[in-house]
Amino acid sequence: MMDQVRILTVVGVGLLGGSIGLGLKKRGFRGQVRGVGRRTTSLDTALDMKAIDSAYTDASAAVSGADLVVICTPAALVIPKLDEIRAACEPHAVITDVASTKGDICAHAAATWPHPRRFVGSHPMAGSEKFGPEHAVPDLYEGSFTIIEHCARLAPEARQMVTELWQTLGSTVVEHEPLRHDECVARTSHLPHVAASALAQLLAGYGHDIRPFVGKGFRDTTRVAGGRPEIWRDICATNRDAIVAATDDLLRRLETFRDHLSDGEWEAVEAFFDAGHAARHKALES
Amino acid sequence: MMDQVRILTVVGVGLLGGSIGLGLKKRGFRGQVRGVGRRTTSLDTALDMKAIDSAYTDASAAVSGADLVVICTPAALVIPKLDEIRAACEPHAVITDVASTKGDICAHAAATWPHPRRFVGSHPMAGSEKFGPEHAVPDLYEGSFTIIEHCARLAPEARQMVTELWQTLGSTVVEHEPLRHDECVARTSHLPHVAASALAQLLAGYGHDIRPFVGKGFRDTTRVAGGRPEIWRDICATNRDAIVAATDDLLRRLETFRDHLSDGEWEAVEAFFDAGHAARHKALES
Repeated sequence: MMDQVRILTVVGVGLLGGSIGLGLKKRGFRGQVRGVGRRTTSLDTALDMKAIDSAYTDASAAVSGADLVVICTPAALVIPKLDEIRAACEPHAVITDVASTKGDICAHAAATWPHPRRFVGSHPMAGSEKFGPEHAVPDLYEGSFTIIEHCARLAPEARQMVTELWQTLGSTVVEHEPLRHDECVARTSHLPHVAASALAQLLAGYGHDIRPFVGKGFRDTTRVAGGRPEIWRDICATNRDAIVAATDDLLRRLETFRDHLSDGEWEAVEAFFDAGHAARHKALES
Repeated sequence: MMDQVRILTVVGVGLLGGSIGLGLKKRGFRGQVRGVGRRTTSLDTALDMKAIDSAYTDASAAVSGADLVVICTPAALVIPKLDEIRAACEPHAVITDVASTKGDICAHAAATWPHPRRFVGSHPMAGSEKFGPEHAVPDLYEGSFTIIEHCARLAPEARQMVTELWQTLGSTVVEHEPLRHDECVARTSHLPHVAASALAQLLAGYGHDIRPFVGKGFRDTTRVAGGRPEIWRDICATNRDAIVAATDDLLRRLETFRDHLSDGEWEAVEAFFDAGHAARHKALES
């Protein structure tokens, strides 16, 4: 099980990074796990939980000698972090990340990393609104999908090691081209966050008397609006074009619905709900 | 516990109606529960589950002699059902319903029912995407809120009996004017259904390869899109003005977001997510 990895460096020891350390150790990983953080409190927590074996505040020192590096910083920091560590990485080291957008990051890596490329972008479809290493759990990735970058110019052994990392953690790995990934995730993840936030805002002008009206439907539909605003600003910044396109698509559908409703075109209104019902069923059916 | 009710008639023995019968019996109600349905299969199921004691396909026969009548049909059928039973109701009978919109129904009752009015509109904030008596449970209303009609022209004892019905089932009763109710529920329930349906539709053009991208966020945000299209068409028909107004508000917020994102105005993008986060927290805090 990942026996060729003697030293693993996790850059960013939050929920995602901490859960990688805990998950690998639970599954028999015998290498050393180094954690890199900016705040010593997070590093201390990760050490106490045994998510990492040693703590670093200097990423370059932490990647020196590492066989595998996983960048788990917020999405907007992945590119600067890649630039920061590139010279310090071992020639044989394999590097990946966990950012939820892949186009900019993979394009930057393709332009700056030696060929055949040993950076392979990853996006594990796991997480929660919680953050920080104190919420890390060993089974965070169990049963999830992880999308990894599809590109002809990757080093085969790097692609293989990144695949093995996620499979070891219990995730199913699929490959997609980065721009296709970003288009899909804009629709399945980013736009739902935008819509949830807008829906929640519609209650902003109401006082206590709105509470009895807030049921499970509202809670579920807006749950993701509980995420951290600065994280979502950054995700939007790294996937702007795809989110704008998806938002335009959503606006068109809502405007059409609004006109049908206003005009009392009940067959069209029912067809609207039918289409949503069918599309959701198709997307979720196993 | 509702000792003055010897005969309760539930018109419509689906999830909501069946759960009233089961819930009252569990809580010691000793009167007779009559169920009215169009399909004998549903009535047989309700009888087998002991949600009702006797079954009727004729609503007028079933309300004859009843002390309390609860109309649990789909929203669009409440008004015709009220017209159908009015002449057969006992002078002392109290009537309520469970429809999720109240403006049209309460206005119709005010125009047609004797004064002081013994019809008092109700909307229990409970339910699920499931339907049919086979999904009825005795605790469906436990811990929920029920909004009942606020109106100066109600018979005090009718208002009292309807309040007691819901409180007996474990629900907290609050009073609102019907139009205010409809405006609130358009924002907390109806518009989330519309948005969930539109979001789900954005995946309609995708094939199997979208599945790995569909995570918990998408599932939760679009869960309510799994509801029955004909029910939601009818709800839209009974709350058109409030849903159109709420949709316009949603469209304005999404358009503004789209422009900020397209222009790279990151502070405004973060402020958008901040506003959603804060509004959701305020609406849900206890």
